[in-house]
Amino acid sequence: MLVVGTGLVGTSVGLALTRAGVEVRLRDAKPEVLAEAVRLGAGRPSEPGERPAALAVVAVPPEAVATVVGEVMRAGEAAYATDVASVKVLPTTQVRERVPDPGRYVGSHPMAGREISGPSAALADLFDGRPWVICADEGTHQQAVTRTLAVARLAGATPMTMTAAEHDAAVALVSHTPHVVAALMAARLSGAPRHEVRLAGPGVTDVTRIAGGDPELWTEILTANAAAVRAVLGGLRADLDRVMAALEAPVERQPVLRDVLRDGVDGRSRLPGKHGTAHTEFATVVVAIDDRPGQLARLFADAGAAGVNVEDVRIEHSPGQPLGLVELDVRPGADRELAASLRERGWTIRG
Amino acid sequence: MLVVGTGLVGTSVGLALTRAGVEVRLRDAKPEVLAEAVRLGAGRPSEPGERPAALAVVAVPPEAVATVVGEVMRAGEAAYATDVASVKVLPTTQVRERVPDPGRYVGSHPMAGREISGPSAALADLFDGRPWVICADEGTHQQAVTRTLAVARLAGATPMTMTAAEHDAAVALVSHTPHVVAALMAARLSGAPRHEVRLAGPGVTDVTRIAGGDPELWTEILTANAAAVRAVLGGLRADLDRVMAALEAPVERQPVLRDVLRDGVDGRSRLPGKHGTAHTEFATVVVAIDDRPGQLARLFADAGAAGVNVEDVRIEHSPGQPLGLVELDVRPGADRELAASLRERGWTIRG
Repeated sequence: MLVVGTGLVGTSVGLALTRAGVEVRLRDAKPEVLAEAVRLGAGRPSEPGERPAALAVVAVPPEAVATVVGEVMRAGEAAYATDVASVKVLPTTQVRERVPDPGRYVGSHPMAGREISGPSAALADLFDGRPWVICADEGTHQQAVTRTLAVARLAGATPMTMTAAEHDAAVALVSHTPHVVAALMAARLSGAPRHEVRLAGPGVTDVTRIAGGDPELWTEILTANAAAVRAVLGGLRADLDRVMAALEAPVERQPVLRDVLRDGVDGRSRLPGKHGTAHTEFATVVVAIDDRPGQLARLFADAGAAGVNVEDVRIEHSPGQPLGLVELDVRPGADRELAASLRERGWTIRG
Repeated sequence: MLVVGTGLVGTSVGLALTRAGVEVRLRDAKPEVLAEAVRLGAGRPSEPGERPAALAVVAVPPEAVATVVGEVMRAGEAAYATDVASVKVLPTTQVRERVPDPGRYVGSHPMAGREISGPSAALADLFDGRPWVICADEGTHQQAVTRTLAVARLAGATPMTMTAAEHDAAVALVSHTPHVVAALMAARLSGAPRHEVRLAGPGVTDVTRIAGGDPELWTEILTANAAAVRAVLGGLRADLDRVMAALEAPVERQPVLRDVLRDGVDGRSRLPGKHGTAHTEFATVVVAIDDRPGQLARLFADAGAAGVNVEDVRIEHSPGQPLGLVELDVRPGADRELAASLRERGWTIRG
């Protein structure tokens, strides 16, 4: 396995895969950053002219992904590549435009991070139990998906599939907009009188925790997902205006405050448990696939077309066997419609 | 000691004072709520016609404080009274208008709470190490302040003094606006597609945690502090508009995102440690006072006039002694100017 870019996420991938017994090669443009990742045990430096790695995990800023993936492919450093950037439409589009044989790349995103950055902040268990979203499309090669799935599993994460656009809308809601909101609140504390800040308790501390993130990195992330974030902020801005109007209005207008606060309680109640893991039982659909290129990607696409999101994926593939079994976990109730819809599209459903 | 209103805060005061060996009498309009507080060990039910309590701690919604304080005084249930509502200008003003001898009341606010409400959510250690703000003014009787200070200390909190207006501006910044912001963000999750919410991690979970608070209670709190909250939200909306404009703009406009995110990092860095307690050494000014009414309130007012906020207060008062020593903790460096300014105003500084 090759990891290109040994910052927080790249080094954490290296540590997690090493923990799982995988041989990891590391590369980074900055020698001192690479040296630190090696020192921490995330892997060994990649040597020029080594045989191609099974998969390159490209852990660089979103707008650099396509360039690095192109380099890796042309240099023959790896047979297939994925990236771990927090947006997926931008890198996926750019790879398709700029990289020869873009089907050897599949975009992915492990949903985990920290406020602090750099290899020294890396953790071997950063991805344990966290979703790792994989965004295959019709053109994606089977092996790119299978190997990325394997990396996600080996790193301790739960693979999920959705389209790049679905992913970007989702992270705008649960990651990027919360970061903006935390920063907007924390910015109010900057320059406030000392005796006011001294009254701060656990509440405002929690609300603003993620605002400690690297401004450069987050400027890139927000810029790369600008439209989706702006859409969520638009709804927030509308509620904010209602609240500010209500605060100026007589008591009769309290219903507005009550409404927004109740929506907040409702939205809050939809979040997973405090360990950040969803406590849901899933139903499983088992599909038989053969080794023709693009089978897996087509399966995910067909599942998407059936309006069903795949919440977890496992692949049983006996070595040398042309046939494989894919287990798709979906929300309870959705398994019947998924199985029926896949049968219609010519897939073989087992059990 | 008498506690009127045995919800989360009132019952927690009862538990904390009982823990400290103080005899606590409890009263609540709802028999079942009172019974629950008694069952939990917060104190015993208050009987009609008992001798006046040393202090009544009124733990009811902001707009009900003046009425309840008036009842307590007229019924002779307590010699002095404080309240623990999260706003101070409204109850202080209403008590001054509606209660005979309003100097026997001093507004105060223990800076602690939980998302869940009711006596069953109460904790004996809810106030440990948290600030307990006391808002005395020129008209406040000495004993009202001294006894409220004693209750704050016995409950494990750190007494602080500021004016009611300073308090309301401070809580708008560090408590009320963060609650609105958390609710606005959490409201975005209400009605969002399940596969989007499933990607939620610790970040958005922290940002929205306090949004789980009781909408009725928070509607009252926000209404009671509407002007101060609106002022903070105004600054937030201005930044939000800049961010939304920047998200639509070309890369050159990224400096705007960077600025807001950096302000967020700066504001975040000003917050106390994760245990919610400020890690600051204070300088102490010791002032001798006699027992004339209003001395303590006048001392706090003079300290405020000197532009120095009192971060902690201790009173050494030998029983039967007409003279007492007041230790005022202020931020390092401010002690000299405070001592000088108090001497000018005729106070006797010790040591």
